[in-house]
Amino acid sequence: MSSVSISLTGESRRYDVLVGAGISADARGHQHGRDRVAVLADRRVTALHGPLLDGAPTLEVEAGESLKTMDGLGRALEFCAASGLSRRSLLIAYGGGTVGDLGGLAASLFKRGIDVLQVPTTLLAQVDASVGGKTAINLPSGKNLAGTFHQPAGVLCDTNLLVTLDDAELSSGLGEVIKTAIIGGDETLTLVERLTPQLLDRDPAALAEIVEACVRVKARVVLSDHEERGPRRVLNLGHTFAHAIEHAAGFGAVPHGVAVGVGLALAAHASERTLGAPGSLTERTVRLLDRAGLPCSLEALREAYGLAGQLTPAALRDGLNHDKKGQVGAPEFVLARGEGDVIMGLHLGEDLLSELLA
Amino acid sequence: MSSVSISLTGESRRYDVLVGAGISADARGHQHGRDRVAVLADRRVTALHGPLLDGAPTLEVEAGESLKTMDGLGRALEFCAASGLSRRSLLIAYGGGTVGDLGGLAASLFKRGIDVLQVPTTLLAQVDASVGGKTAINLPSGKNLAGTFHQPAGVLCDTNLLVTLDDAELSSGLGEVIKTAIIGGDETLTLVERLTPQLLDRDPAALAEIVEACVRVKARVVLSDHEERGPRRVLNLGHTFAHAIEHAAGFGAVPHGVAVGVGLALAAHASERTLGAPGSLTERTVRLLDRAGLPCSLEALREAYGLAGQLTPAALRDGLNHDKKGQVGAPEFVLARGEGDVIMGLHLGEDLLSELLA
Repeated sequence: MSSVSISLTGESRRYDVLVGAGISADARGHQHGRDRVAVLADRRVTALHGPLLDGAPTLEVEAGESLKTMDGLGRALEFCAASGLSRRSLLIAYGGGTVGDLGGLAASLFKRGIDVLQVPTTLLAQVDASVGGKTAINLPSGKNLAGTFHQPAGVLCDTNLLVTLDDAELSSGLGEVIKTAIIGGDETLTLVERLTPQLLDRDPAALAEIVEACVRVKARVVLSDHEERGPRRVLNLGHTFAHAIEHAAGFGAVPHGVAVGVGLALAAHASERTLGAPGSLTERTVRLLDRAGLPCSLEALREAYGLAGQLTPAALRDGLNHDKKGQVGAPEFVLARGEGDVIMGLHLGEDLLSELLA
Repeated sequence: MSSVSISLTGESRRYDVLVGAGISADARGHQHGRDRVAVLADRRVTALHGPLLDGAPTLEVEAGESLKTMDGLGRALEFCAASGLSRRSLLIAYGGGTVGDLGGLAASLFKRGIDVLQVPTTLLAQVDASVGGKTAINLPSGKNLAGTFHQPAGVLCDTNLLVTLDDAELSSGLGEVIKTAIIGGDETLTLVERLTPQLLDRDPAALAEIVEACVRVKARVVLSDHEERGPRRVLNLGHTFAHAIEHAAGFGAVPHGVAVGVGLALAAHASERTLGAPGSLTERTVRLLDRAGLPCSLEALREAYGLAGQLTPAALRDGLNHDKKGQVGAPEFVLARGEGDVIMGLHLGEDLLSELLA
């Protein structure tokens, strides 16, 4: 097993992100010095890979956006109480991004904050959701509208867990991989282009190389901006469009990474039009999305998911107004002017928006 | 109008606690530089004193422990969303401790944290809940089991709002006043003894003097221990017993300050027995509780609230095990060895506990 250690320094803690085949076995080591450990686990992951920790109280949940509700949060908090967790205990989130988001939020609230260990089990969660300490649930009004910043005690990215991902989950993860690569710059993007065939074959070595590269990019960004007041927002590349898509489609109808993929294509077109970004970046983006099996346009997305009735220009425009990162009535965009050259806080004209959302 | 400014330095912000007759009018000044301001208000307070801010969206709620649930939190968060609040907005909590707890928690979660202004309207909230940044809701398993530390943008303690408190609310507040005075030391305790008659007459000058003195004591403690890992726990004097009483009686059946009062008497007896505390402190405590119209013993409490069937020794013992500050199975107590001399992290023997809870 090979693993890398990446240290992030938040306002009050340091933690390691370990990447490697079989690294989730390290969860056992996190029991030392704890009075209790409990696990919030994706039912499907434990069915495929077995329980993370034998003997630890485990709440098995159905992963997905429908988990990230006030009800789901209440159940997770009651599980912490029923497991007798104290401020010296550890909660482990063992699952994809939705399990990590919920587990992180429950841990940050239970007794006003206990430690959480993240063991992300999807490509999307390993490259994105596990790093940075953002936790959230959805409100009826919008996605991720309630949450906290709660840095984990550690993150274990076990690439063995990725071999059982189905094609849709893998592709969805590749959406975030491609986003991260564009932010990282030409070298990261070239690496992803080169390894995409092996990634689609679930080659463990390629997966570990890509996860590590993406975690490094994300760590670099997060380190510079712990509470998302500034530069961290480059990570929202393509996300204003993606959130609008998810809002219009209904939470969970389109996988996050798929929405991000289309968002990247839309952002690329917008960048060409407003920032004079080179067409070559748009081409690289669209070609990579295509090779990853992701829709490259709203049209392709509507067709692939049968959402022509939901993803109307008007519904998407409404979704943009609900995006939590933007100001009231004036959505803000993050666009790439080139590989590794990302601009934040941009507003787009109504004409261009209408054209892009058509 | 006279007011005092007390600056607390948390890990990332400073804020002022202003105390004075009519000081809630300063809420208008907090609108400057905000895109939106919304108010979470106790329905009874607005009925008595009018809306805090004309024209601001206001969610009127029924105050009390029943407000501090996952449902109540969901409604408060949806109100933030419906009011179009952004990260540059302000939520104002206008009410007693339960409104402040819920408003503070909703503000700390909405969009991962927006500012909250606390305008506490009860004596209990002004002397205690408004200072220190603790927010919480209850879980079915226990009181205040889910929450955050979220320092407010400011606190306005308007003593004009206290003149409409009924006797029960005023007495409940005096429970926390007496606790704070014991922690503060002989000078504060003597001040409270001297002013108790005027406090019971709702004399505005006396109220302002006491609130200010208590806020200063609490600020001194909180300043030294922002996240409640150490010295801040002196503020839990009497509270292990109080939480057990509230747990056994059912949340809301006994006002918090009343439970704290009985907890102070029990703690005083326990201090005499285990720490050799002078009987004179027990006498001062019991005499003050009595003059404030508060029950001074479990027996008096059972009789006053008709809770003989609920506040059984066994139910109280069970409640102690649920106290969130303690370790699993071994409740921790905070006791005063003398005026201003408070000891934390004490365990009491089963024999003594049985005797105290009889």
